[in-house]
Amino acid sequence: MISDTYLYKEIHGQPAALSRLIKNEKASIQKLARAILQRQVTHVVIAARGTSDNAARFAQYVLGAVNGLTVALATPSLFSIYGRPPKFGNALVLGISQSGKSPDIVAVLDEARQQKRLTAVFTNTPGSDLASTGDIVVDLNAGEERAVAATKTYTNSLAAVAMLSAELSGSAEGFAQLNRLPDVMVETLTMDPLIKEIAPRYRYMQHCVIIGRGFNYATAFEMALKMKELTYTIVEPYSSADFLHGPIALIESGFPVVIIAPSGILSAEMASFLTQVNERQAESIVISDVPDLLASARIPLALPKSVPEYLSPLTAILPGQLFSMYLAAARDYDVDSPRGLSKVTETR
Amino acid sequence: MISDTYLYKEIHGQPAALSRLIKNEKASIQKLARAILQRQVTHVVIAARGTSDNAARFAQYVLGAVNGLTVALATPSLFSIYGRPPKFGNALVLGISQSGKSPDIVAVLDEARQQKRLTAVFTNTPGSDLASTGDIVVDLNAGEERAVAATKTYTNSLAAVAMLSAELSGSAEGFAQLNRLPDVMVETLTMDPLIKEIAPRYRYMQHCVIIGRGFNYATAFEMALKMKELTYTIVEPYSSADFLHGPIALIESGFPVVIIAPSGILSAEMASFLTQVNERQAESIVISDVPDLLASARIPLALPKSVPEYLSPLTAILPGQLFSMYLAAARDYDVDSPRGLSKVTETR
Repeated sequence: MISDTYLYKEIHGQPAALSRLIKNEKASIQKLARAILQRQVTHVVIAARGTSDNAARFAQYVLGAVNGLTVALATPSLFSIYGRPPKFGNALVLGISQSGKSPDIVAVLDEARQQKRLTAVFTNTPGSDLASTGDIVVDLNAGEERAVAATKTYTNSLAAVAMLSAELSGSAEGFAQLNRLPDVMVETLTMDPLIKEIAPRYRYMQHCVIIGRGFNYATAFEMALKMKELTYTIVEPYSSADFLHGPIALIESGFPVVIIAPSGILSAEMASFLTQVNERQAESIVISDVPDLLASARIPLALPKSVPEYLSPLTAILPGQLFSMYLAAARDYDVDSPRGLSKVTETR
Repeated sequence: MISDTYLYKEIHGQPAALSRLIKNEKASIQKLARAILQRQVTHVVIAARGTSDNAARFAQYVLGAVNGLTVALATPSLFSIYGRPPKFGNALVLGISQSGKSPDIVAVLDEARQQKRLTAVFTNTPGSDLASTGDIVVDLNAGEERAVAATKTYTNSLAAVAMLSAELSGSAEGFAQLNRLPDVMVETLTMDPLIKEIAPRYRYMQHCVIIGRGFNYATAFEMALKMKELTYTIVEPYSSADFLHGPIALIESGFPVVIIAPSGILSAEMASFLTQVNERQAESIVISDVPDLLASARIPLALPKSVPEYLSPLTAILPGQLFSMYLAAARDYDVDSPRGLSKVTETR
């Protein structure tokens, strides 16, 4: 039974995990926000791999758009392999890692301490090597994650970023919106039977692209990563703008294109993009709460509830997780232990 | 005849284009380096799309490792669509664009001027909108590029970054190495008949991954983009470290994996990676000048000449360009005008 798997339980356990984080980590987030303001941090450098790197992509947009902070993704090999670390300037250096174990991420944070920069760590393992490098540690509070494919640590990493953003801007409304999110996630997860029904259509799909932009650029990357890990499909994520600068040449009749398009400023752009791929007879799969976009999709996956655009990555990823799980199941793959992966990956 | 196409001529015209750049733009690069030092720039933000974005990835490593500068890639939609631009701090804001036309890139540079930051533009079109936003403009001197897939503007963008790096560090040796590069490129392009012979083996290949790390992370992205544009293959680029954090689940017997591994600090890492994919019976295609790596490859593509690792992306991309061209030819595609692409892409 799929509902007996860790993955199923962890996907459906995300609303509770989020509630825990919001309840337990307000103090650490406040401490981090105070330190950022006190030290007049000018930009942020984030070190992360895999799923956590997708949370870093989300941070680029949220901390950029809401808090005016330029966010750079670190180049860990310059620290760990080349031994030629750049100067951070007056940056906050943030490590995000579920396990807190990857040596290359630890190397970036170690260097930040050497350079006497403010450091912070978001991790689900507060006793880890990485956590020991953080001036401030945010415990992701996701509970033990036993499926190899990360789900609840991802959404809680996004939420920790959103909490930091709300705290930095002193936005009571931001926290109110976050507090409503666990319920919205519960509603979004009612898409489960719809997605279970749709997934077998893609039993023999060999490849696809996933399009997202702005806040949901991260969602495109994370859904692509789940599909690769769980279903071994070749899936490439793109910003709609980057896709038009070359890769759109790939699209021919029947080519599957997933478009992540929750309502927001980007809706018009996404509608125009959808028109272009429809003209090329792509198989368009649209994850959205915008009626017009859903109406133009070959396969509409309707998000049951709207949320502010900057928080939509926390709900828009849920159908992507479910889709990956049910497609893996349709292919008779082990959803908890994909071939050749282990829960902790240590890279230099 | 393939040798009558623009693409062929432009690929083989890269050594001459590089010589022009080095000869004609020393002064503008010096001016830029002086401005960076005078204004005590602490980090760099680069706005670019497509091929130029891959040159930006190269800049992250070169300016980071050699010059100690943290380099962030801009999030153009925050400027152009959301209208929520982050603060640049004391950054150099650099736009890279062959055509100088994409409105989203212009929007980032416009905002940088508003914030009174130092701005620079690397473009092959010095009369463009984008060029008018640069305090300092470096003309890429590639000559008109008529094939839709960019080649000589890419290598000249890399070279402009390398010139800036050498100038910033006052390295006479750096310039001497650069001056030798056109000849090394000529030698590297003697791989043409070998690659012409190999390419048809991949006539029916539907997808592959391309692995590079460190300085050649950019090369993996750029080779992947050329293959997508020219051959419509699903190609995904990865750092070897990111690949091990999940996507390695994809690899099964016969799965094509291109490994970009010029000699350097990363050689040991790449050897270990090659062992792992060979254990999974991947079809390994290795672009390298390291005898041991080539000996372990299913298909070795030997770079005829070694160069310092930080400059190797200028030569390691050449077999990737040739491979993409000859594979497109093997599939009877138009190498100068891929379907659905135009030379100038304007995205918001």
